Amino acid sequence: MIVSTEIARFEGITLESGAHIDPVEVAYETYGTLNADRGNAVLVVHAFTGDAHAAGMSRETGKPGWWDNSIGPGKAFDTDEYFVICSNILGGCQGTTGPASINPATGKAWGMSFPAVTVRDMVRLQKMLVDSLDIRQLLAVAGGSMGGMQALEWAVSFAENVRSVIVIASTARHSPQQIAFNEVGRQSIMADPDWNGGDYYEGAAPARGLSVARMVGHITYMSDESMREKFGRRRKDQPATAIDVAPEFEVESYLRYRGSQFVTRFDANSYIYITKAMDTYDVSNGTASLADAFEGVSTRFLVISFTSDWLYPSYQSQEIVRTLRRRNHDVAYCELPTNYGHDAFLVDVEEQTELIRGFLRSTFRNLAGSAGAAA
Amino acid sequence: MIVSTEIARFEGITLESGAHIDPVEVAYETYGTLNADRGNAVLVVHAFTGDAHAAGMSRETGKPGWWDNSIGPGKAFDTDEYFVICSNILGGCQGTTGPASINPATGKAWGMSFPAVTVRDMVRLQKMLVDSLDIRQLLAVAGGSMGGMQALEWAVSFAENVRSVIVIASTARHSPQQIAFNEVGRQSIMADPDWNGGDYYEGAAPARGLSVARMVGHITYMSDESMREKFGRRRKDQPATAIDVAPEFEVESYLRYRGSQFVTRFDANSYIYITKAMDTYDVSNGTASLADAFEGVSTRFLVISFTSDWLYPSYQSQEIVRTLRRRNHDVAYCELPTNYGHDAFLVDVEEQTELIRGFLRSTFRNLAGSAGAAA
Repeated sequence: MIVSTEIARFEGITLESGAHIDPVEVAYETYGTLNADRGNAVLVVHAFTGDAHAAGMSRETGKPGWWDNSIGPGKAFDTDEYFVICSNILGGCQGTTGPASINPATGKAWGMSFPAVTVRDMVRLQKMLVDSLDIRQLLAVAGGSMGGMQALEWAVSFAENVRSVIVIASTARHSPQQIAFNEVGRQSIMADPDWNGGDYYEGAAPARGLSVARMVGHITYMSDESMREKFGRRRKDQPATAIDVAPEFEVESYLRYRGSQFVTRFDANSYIYITKAMDTYDVSNGTASLADAFEGVSTRFLVISFTSDWLYPSYQSQEIVRTLRRRNHDVAYCELPTNYGHDAFLVDVEEQTELIRGFLRSTFRNLAGSAGAAA
Repeated sequence: MIVSTEIARFEGITLESGAHIDPVEVAYETYGTLNADRGNAVLVVHAFTGDAHAAGMSRETGKPGWWDNSIGPGKAFDTDEYFVICSNILGGCQGTTGPASINPATGKAWGMSFPAVTVRDMVRLQKMLVDSLDIRQLLAVAGGSMGGMQALEWAVSFAENVRSVIVIASTARHSPQQIAFNEVGRQSIMADPDWNGGDYYEGAAPARGLSVARMVGHITYMSDESMREKFGRRRKDQPATAIDVAPEFEVESYLRYRGSQFVTRFDANSYIYITKAMDTYDVSNGTASLADAFEGVSTRFLVISFTSDWLYPSYQSQEIVRTLRRRNHDVAYCELPTNYGHDAFLVDVEEQTELIRGFLRSTFRNLAGSAGAAA
């Protein structure tokens, strides 16, 4: 399956804060075929540094999508059954308008003059995309990590337009520890003189700061146990008479490599904007409580968490599930045993596939059943 | 109790690697009174960024010691009973020879030309200090975190000279996750242009890189739960139309403050040297297994870990305990329930105090008993 990323263009968007971004573009891909009644569309939304290329082989880069093990014929998101859309996020740097985009008013990159965006703003832009595809109701919105936050936000912002949401390894709001890890990343970028207050697009990007930020991120995506299995304490000979500034342990080489790769594909200002959107997100914003946020929402929920995920621990998923069940919402929950930590939603997908496949199928049948009853 | 830090000077030390440091100095403090038979001395060794000022009020700074809640009359280390010594570490920057010290051969700071030091080297220098105080056998060596590694190393390097060791929130060797967090700190320092290959003593220190390194450290010292209790999601008003680069959440202010404080008291090169010593430490180095490392060691052990310590998780302490018990070593172990994470050994000391007090008392009585029997 060879795929290309498309760009949808809109006149502009008014943000939650009241600020405007005019015009605005959003990158997306689609897989599978939309039914005649346009009722089989599933929106997949990505985590922090993901992009619109979720499945298939990219015509541009030749690379598989980030969730290619879960989207395709016979996979969790079965493209023989469903029309799958993956949308990039506002504030990003992979085809969607963000701080690295050109501000038409100045002819230069926005940089830090780009308005702050929220997860709700990201979801609003996705809604504009879905509307432009002439899809009135999505069968499901699904995502892991920050994708799970977007899925939750779809349920509360656009309850009429989404039949079900799948929230994986996510949370209704960040804990101080999650904020703290993001803040370290931001401070690492801002400490790099090349960041220059966000104004670096005509010079060198703050690669060193961004690389360190990414290294911290990678530690939090793995589990203690998966790191022990993957790296152990393998190292070069010792003892050395001098400090070796080259990597000594395999885990050091791995982190440095991942950091150096990341800076070739990601914008440092987007790192700041998106982590801020994550940290300030709270699905209950504007309501008295988490339960109130879901008031009147008839969307079905599938919530999945992972035993070894310490970045988005299961208690955060369970808080959502408890709240929904107390109000008799239709919610399925499963905590999957795995050693892969937060990365599990991307790599350890066997049981997850069964859960998603069954959940989508039953949602789709219910929909077909109720449509038949109404006919 | 007003105390002053003393400096012991030696002609030099030959390191595990074969390198020499000539001359060498070590900072230390003492509390309480040495008995006539010199049998009541306890050596307290500190964690990563600690110093020789463990107890009492510093004559120089007016500040209490880092373990003042545990060392003093009637406390865990009861100075009415014991003569307590706290020794700083080789490679440090608080009175003991390290990379910020002047290399007599050049008249300039060593910087990165300072030889790599190991935990074993640190312990060897402490042994020289203890010898110089004319103490043949310590009643105990006690420490938390990297202090626990030093205590373990005392047991295997100088079994004849230490009656018991107390190992708190520590490990026999670092896991890849622990190495990874240290590596992020090192990379953050080295990414700061002011680091300048370690040659910054005549200019500006790499404060931004060191500050970010410290921020990462602080996250790992706390638990998810203690951070939620301490900071919650308290923040300024929102939504903002622009990204605020000032701290927004309390946890951000806290981390930035701790980072900015740290750079006023700690040397960036020492950060690199000491984390390297931690990462490369393995008590079983030179032997076939952990069990072999403790062969012939008759030292008593007290091992303490904390339920919410995810940086030095209990399984690491339990590995030590299991190994020792399998060989019939005299070992007491307790996992204490606490929310304070790794910091617990410094702040949540009530139960720890009972354990240490009882363990020291029984060790002291056994010693007195066997001395009596021999008399």
